[in-house]
Amino acid sequence: MQAALSRPKLISLAAGFTDNASLPVAESRRLLNELLRATKTGRPALQYGTTAGEEPLRRLTAEHLHKLDSSSFSSSSFVLENEPRTRTRTKDEDEGNYSPERIIITGGSQQFLYMTTEALCDEGDIVLVEDPTYFVFLSILQSRNLRAHGVQLERDGVDLAHLEMVLARLKKAGELRRVKALYLVTYFQNPTGATTTLAKKRALLKLLKQYERAAGHPIYLIEDAAYRELAFGGRADLPFSPAERQLRPAAKNIAPPTALVLPGAKERVIYAGTYSKPYATGVRVGFGILPEPVYTAVLRIKGNHDFGTANLLQHLLARALASGLYDRHLAVARKNYARKAAVMKRAMAEHFPANIEIWEAAGGLYFWVRLPKKVSAGVNSKIFQTALKNDVLYVPGELCYAEDPWRRKPANEMRISFGHASAENIRAGIKRLGKVLRKLI
Amino acid sequence: MQAALSRPKLISLAAGFTDNASLPVAESRRLLNELLRATKTGRPALQYGTTAGEEPLRRLTAEHLHKLDSSSFSSSSFVLENEPRTRTRTKDEDEGNYSPERIIITGGSQQFLYMTTEALCDEGDIVLVEDPTYFVFLSILQSRNLRAHGVQLERDGVDLAHLEMVLARLKKAGELRRVKALYLVTYFQNPTGATTTLAKKRALLKLLKQYERAAGHPIYLIEDAAYRELAFGGRADLPFSPAERQLRPAAKNIAPPTALVLPGAKERVIYAGTYSKPYATGVRVGFGILPEPVYTAVLRIKGNHDFGTANLLQHLLARALASGLYDRHLAVARKNYARKAAVMKRAMAEHFPANIEIWEAAGGLYFWVRLPKKVSAGVNSKIFQTALKNDVLYVPGELCYAEDPWRRKPANEMRISFGHASAENIRAGIKRLGKVLRKLI
Repeated sequence: MQAALSRPKLISLAAGFTDNASLPVAESRRLLNELLRATKTGRPALQYGTTAGEEPLRRLTAEHLHKLDSSSFSSSSFVLENEPRTRTRTKDEDEGNYSPERIIITGGSQQFLYMTTEALCDEGDIVLVEDPTYFVFLSILQSRNLRAHGVQLERDGVDLAHLEMVLARLKKAGELRRVKALYLVTYFQNPTGATTTLAKKRALLKLLKQYERAAGHPIYLIEDAAYRELAFGGRADLPFSPAERQLRPAAKNIAPPTALVLPGAKERVIYAGTYSKPYATGVRVGFGILPEPVYTAVLRIKGNHDFGTANLLQHLLARALASGLYDRHLAVARKNYARKAAVMKRAMAEHFPANIEIWEAAGGLYFWVRLPKKVSAGVNSKIFQTALKNDVLYVPGELCYAEDPWRRKPANEMRISFGHASAENIRAGIKRLGKVLRKLI
Repeated sequence: MQAALSRPKLISLAAGFTDNASLPVAESRRLLNELLRATKTGRPALQYGTTAGEEPLRRLTAEHLHKLDSSSFSSSSFVLENEPRTRTRTKDEDEGNYSPERIIITGGSQQFLYMTTEALCDEGDIVLVEDPTYFVFLSILQSRNLRAHGVQLERDGVDLAHLEMVLARLKKAGELRRVKALYLVTYFQNPTGATTTLAKKRALLKLLKQYERAAGHPIYLIEDAAYRELAFGGRADLPFSPAERQLRPAAKNIAPPTALVLPGAKERVIYAGTYSKPYATGVRVGFGILPEPVYTAVLRIKGNHDFGTANLLQHLLARALASGLYDRHLAVARKNYARKAAVMKRAMAEHFPANIEIWEAAGGLYFWVRLPKKVSAGVNSKIFQTALKNDVLYVPGELCYAEDPWRRKPANEMRISFGHASAENIRAGIKRLGKVLRKLI
């Protein structure tokens, strides 16, 4: 595989890299020029900052998130989720769920996830995860000798009945005291593209709360919203198979509010966000919102890890946000991803066999492809190896499942990314992959 | 104390911040402009990179370190350390101790130290440290439930006899198997300004090796060279007291080579370096050189922490190094620090009482001030509190000592920094502090 990766003809539909062509090169140049034109703004950008992150960026982040959550409520899609079209602000919102004092700036949201896990969990503890989930998060858990239990994922978030079953089973086994959190990638999930509805967030937060007494401590909801801002807009978040060409009409906005708007969020919701994917992955800046006492613990950990993310990056992003350039760039990037996703979709319809289920993404970077149950697309499968031989690479779905003693890992799935590859390479890659699938299924 | 810190009149001689006036604002602007002028160079800088770091920066770092170590040998100071003036290259050097494949780029050298500790140590393990040492390193150890044992520090590095005694004592106590590393800040140490000679590095490496059989595993030397490039040049690294106005003639270059030049270094020396302090602390880029199998372990940990330091910062630094701008900026910064150190020295001679021992730095950011043995300068001491009331802050030396069951922490010392404060504030701050000391000693 290592040898294949260095082959010049290889088309990788595996990497979670972002689109090269829409990287804000000229925009960043302009912002950095402004920033470093005068010593008054330039020096603070080149000096150490604070461990929590620069105040202006934390404030802008708070405002940005609050705006995103507010606008979600006025969108038509929200009705699709069985929520009232209008509503009054919750007490929690008014009490400052988005306060800069609850925000920490990190080296990508990955570092935030690592530090939060470090703060919450002792060796042997359990984190509940979506089944399947973000595989680097599984790697964090494994590296810290933590256990993961999977909760079945549906197109609109985890299966609540299954979550309850998992919690009940852990309680019965006397393991509930080891359960510290439920980790969800709530928007255009990596790897499936699924988005969790607010109704589900509300229900699962309530469910976790019910088990806290037996657990003897808080069970936090970690909401990883890394792909949140990469919504295409105007696209349906519905499964399709190449056989069905008639899709249901698209919803206008498929990004519901975060769990931060829910009652009790201030005490239980840990929110992980990032500017890397929406703006530029080379500017690795993520952030998180944390309830006390986890905030203080994570801040202490950040102090030991690196005592603060590079100020130059923070000042660049603060300037991008404040100037409106961030939003303008994002609009371009989203259009670009929507276009590439459409290219991939058409190519799949043309080249993939009919007996395949595809979870179409309405944002983010990935399509989730499910082959017939008995077919393996795993690392050692004939399909993966043949695809590699034919110079096309995908992420085997099995890598996205936790080592969970309660079920066998499915091996019939693939994560296919339209993030990094050009439209041309997407077409060529899917054609190659389709040929392999037609031959081997 | 928190309240005092926000007082506008407070002069902080505590922070390890670097000099504001010599931050490379215009230089960074020029480099970033060049970098982002064309998409060909701009896009890679704004895209994800690899976990280990960008190849050009790792290569330039390898070359840079090799050059530093080579030039140290031809300097006159080297003779002062009882080493031959000329010598042949060791086998290890020729075998590529500085190879880019052994280098990892990190978010400051702090992150490197954290990850290395994570890779080397299990809960309850022991790391030997200088007594006193860099207090954030102590915080890393504490956060990971590791134990620290202090080895007495002299002006030219740890006391070898004491190191041997500590090792022998640990062996006798059956604790040698818990000893994983010796951590040294080898240049212009934080907090004392002491620089470890190559002769000492050679001797202690040999000593550690002797105890490895009883330990049952390698005992690594972690050489933290964060301040290495901040040598003033032409200054003596000798103690002085304000009473002695006649100083010994200065050595030309007080930066000996690293332990990487020594036989066996490739297997046992872990080198931590940084570009943050020499270039700009807002561009948080550090690096490390690691022997296998620690390199592989740290790389895996970096993959979980953040899978790579921001590419934009790495490309900026690679350009600074390649263009020679890094060296030119450093020459200016060093001159600036030398000037501010001289200002501080003169002010101390003028305002401090005579019965105080001062370790004068020949580089770095700190002077180490030792009051008479029975006088406390600790956090709760009258001196610290009165200084704070008089709007001047220093780092109490006691914070730089490990919780070591084998000795009491000295409390009569202070770390005083000339890094961040302006010359004017240095004069005013030392005057205030001198007044307090004259009154309370």
